[in-house]
Amino acid sequence: MLKFTAHKRLKSELKTFIKAAGQQWLSTAAAQNPRLSPELWQLEYVGNELAFRGRALSSLLSKWGTPLHIVDEAKLISNLESFQKVADGFEDGLEVFYSYKTNPLPWVFEVLHQQGAGAEVISEYELWLALKLGVPADKIIYNGPAKSQASLEAAIDKNILSININNAEELDRISALAAALGKTARVGIRVTSAAGWTGQFGLPVETGAALEVFRQALAQPELSVTTLHCHRGNLIYDEDTLQSHLHFLLKFVDELKEKLNWIPAVLDVGGSLATPTVRYLSKKEIKLATTFLVPPSPPEPQSVLTPQAYAETVVRVVRSHFQQQGYPQPRIVSEPGRSLTGNSQFMLTTVQNLKHDASFDFAVLDAGINLASCVASEYHEVFPLQLKSAPMRCHRLVGPICHMGDTLYMASYLPQLERQDALAIMDSGAYFIADATSFAFSQPAVVAITTSGQEVLIRKAESFDHLVSLDHFAAKEGQPS
Amino acid sequence: MLKFTAHKRLKSELKTFIKAAGQQWLSTAAAQNPRLSPELWQLEYVGNELAFRGRALSSLLSKWGTPLHIVDEAKLISNLESFQKVADGFEDGLEVFYSYKTNPLPWVFEVLHQQGAGAEVISEYELWLALKLGVPADKIIYNGPAKSQASLEAAIDKNILSININNAEELDRISALAAALGKTARVGIRVTSAAGWTGQFGLPVETGAALEVFRQALAQPELSVTTLHCHRGNLIYDEDTLQSHLHFLLKFVDELKEKLNWIPAVLDVGGSLATPTVRYLSKKEIKLATTFLVPPSPPEPQSVLTPQAYAETVVRVVRSHFQQQGYPQPRIVSEPGRSLTGNSQFMLTTVQNLKHDASFDFAVLDAGINLASCVASEYHEVFPLQLKSAPMRCHRLVGPICHMGDTLYMASYLPQLERQDALAIMDSGAYFIADATSFAFSQPAVVAITTSGQEVLIRKAESFDHLVSLDHFAAKEGQPS
Repeated sequence: MLKFTAHKRLKSELKTFIKAAGQQWLSTAAAQNPRLSPELWQLEYVGNELAFRGRALSSLLSKWGTPLHIVDEAKLISNLESFQKVADGFEDGLEVFYSYKTNPLPWVFEVLHQQGAGAEVISEYELWLALKLGVPADKIIYNGPAKSQASLEAAIDKNILSININNAEELDRISALAAALGKTARVGIRVTSAAGWTGQFGLPVETGAALEVFRQALAQPELSVTTLHCHRGNLIYDEDTLQSHLHFLLKFVDELKEKLNWIPAVLDVGGSLATPTVRYLSKKEIKLATTFLVPPSPPEPQSVLTPQAYAETVVRVVRSHFQQQGYPQPRIVSEPGRSLTGNSQFMLTTVQNLKHDASFDFAVLDAGINLASCVASEYHEVFPLQLKSAPMRCHRLVGPICHMGDTLYMASYLPQLERQDALAIMDSGAYFIADATSFAFSQPAVVAITTSGQEVLIRKAESFDHLVSLDHFAAKEGQPS
Repeated sequence: MLKFTAHKRLKSELKTFIKAAGQQWLSTAAAQNPRLSPELWQLEYVGNELAFRGRALSSLLSKWGTPLHIVDEAKLISNLESFQKVADGFEDGLEVFYSYKTNPLPWVFEVLHQQGAGAEVISEYELWLALKLGVPADKIIYNGPAKSQASLEAAIDKNILSININNAEELDRISALAAALGKTARVGIRVTSAAGWTGQFGLPVETGAALEVFRQALAQPELSVTTLHCHRGNLIYDEDTLQSHLHFLLKFVDELKEKLNWIPAVLDVGGSLATPTVRYLSKKEIKLATTFLVPPSPPEPQSVLTPQAYAETVVRVVRSHFQQQGYPQPRIVSEPGRSLTGNSQFMLTTVQNLKHDASFDFAVLDAGINLASCVASEYHEVFPLQLKSAPMRCHRLVGPICHMGDTLYMASYLPQLERQDALAIMDSGAYFIADATSFAFSQPAVVAITTSGQEVLIRKAESFDHLVSLDHFAAKEGQPS
């Protein structure tokens, strides 16, 4: 037993030594870690203050509180316009249906809808919201594997552009519902390739299952089959991946024409285009950051397909193919999420507490995995709101929720942080708000900076009263209410 | 290129063949997978209907909707009473301070407080809620690494039992605040051992850092140092782990007495006791379930330390030590979370869609990782609400949120599920509600079955209007509000 303990201690000491040496060597190199330029987001340091389109971010924080999301309306609109550009030589471009789930802010939806975007919804709630916002039925597409009866009835009743079907069971339900309502339902079939998501989603082309369900759907008098839908799921970073996605779809279009004499009136190519300044971190990178404090290197934004290049390729490839084959041109639909809103928003957060450790400091932020869970597994640039002349230091940026797993950045090299220093975490416009919880802390406010430079509070922070507004108090006599 | 493609296809086919053979072999054995008995939760099949304390669960679902959490008040109270039992030969037992973050339902808190439990809070919101519920200041402990200024002021002003300090910086802040308020703050120091959580939490004993901060705290006239706090974090399943946790603490008590002549008036042993019917799944188990459809085997509830055994050990070991050393007896405090409420609640969910696959079926539930994220990495028993004579079938139980990662059970063997079949997912009383998001779907209602057998709606489901109640609509003229 003693021997075992001694051996264990030796091993542990050796491990500590190697780790320390490794840390020193690596972190010296890492301290000059490259960062993305603030200019990518219309940010710059004016004096020592980080400013957004000329406005000091610290003034926003002191006015609106912390944490805080900032929406950049101009970026939102320019992103959308990039998708909407029509490729040279073609008349019609891409119709954008924004993926509501990505960043569920009604104000953002309204801005996008006003510029002509439709709504891609995946639940009864999202369908309700699209209708509430006045989105025309012809600009709503309904995806998702769990469509409630009430939502299908509403979708059929309003005659939305397409209810996209995942499997034969859904097909039968929708036919039956349409028959009961005395209506015709406009539907699409979601198909899958081995290169993308499969599972509960859609029907595989390669097994013949997709063709078979198309055959069944076309035989149903209550259904108007309008759409061929294929959402890749796995992210698209480059032209080659997009091309192969499109060629897969177009090959199946030809098969549908040949075998069922059917041509899609709507070709829905799905979403999945990446945000250029965000990338997934590998397990190895996370481990290196955890153990050796090596920060992951930034993505190369210029290597990622832009919305405009994406749209141009989609339009050119699809329209040329339909033209060559003599098919009538379809409406071409895309359902961008992260590539449309991801980089049009960022989050401000403040250091609540500091704990010095041997080789790095813990900086406890007021936003952790409760508000920004994806930062634990994705590269998101982070900037201090004030550039100080303090020496560079490795910080582990953790959240407030009292759990060891609440770490956003394992190793972030910043001028020595102090309490109340503020940081901007970039690209919070995809899956920050969608995945947020109210774990012990309120969800934050969202302020938009409009194209005319106004600050608009588009979502209030949760108040404590709001957090218990659905609760039944005074369970027992004599309790305070 | 051709050669490469052929080789890839061969490899892929071989992989598919091996996988299929393995699946068949393993799933045949797995189909008789053992399950925990429904009786562990006062559930039983009456005829084919799953009933809870004599009440058919299907009637609850049709009355209150789906998904739905059910709180068992009797179990809640009996769990608390188990913790509160005093060990033979001792006068005073354990004081329970419920970890609010674990299952944030005010009605549940009220029940626990009425039975004498205090509140362990980690944020300004939770402190506000404890005070709102009328919890006496002497029954509130404030932990957490991100304590806001306002919350510290309130905690000092109300003179709560203990503000537990994580590091020297917090100590200085609290002293300064107390001085400014002209008050004395009751504080504790959170210490850590190598066997438990460290990181941003507390001060390590082994390096001398904990002792040093105690020394500093005792020198501050504005602080009344009442508490020695050590929360393990890593779960406690057995007596040995608990004993080693206690011995670590008591050894440090002796060091504090010897070096600083200080003895804790409050010994806060933290939480971390496991729920007996829940356990973490290893990566290997998840992989086996994913690839070969082998369901993880259930935990052995009888091998897990009960709340009563836990309390008896804590009280016996601590009181004996203080007695032997001639120290005045402390208040002994524990901060249970999952072990107190985990198994006093379960969640009902309904199949929304089915997709048949070769070796298993996807059943899409109306609750996924949006409402039950921990089920993806923990064993949680699941029961069908109706026992059908249908053949056993492997199901992959996935959620509604339109993401490949939304899987709760990789391989669950149940009589062939159909749409609208309902399931009970057990032990939803820890970190289901705390970690819940409103991702595209409303968060569900919570109904309590009281000790007198009443059904009380203790939390309403989020309505669609509630989901947008903090949003600013009509961003632009002409938009509907």
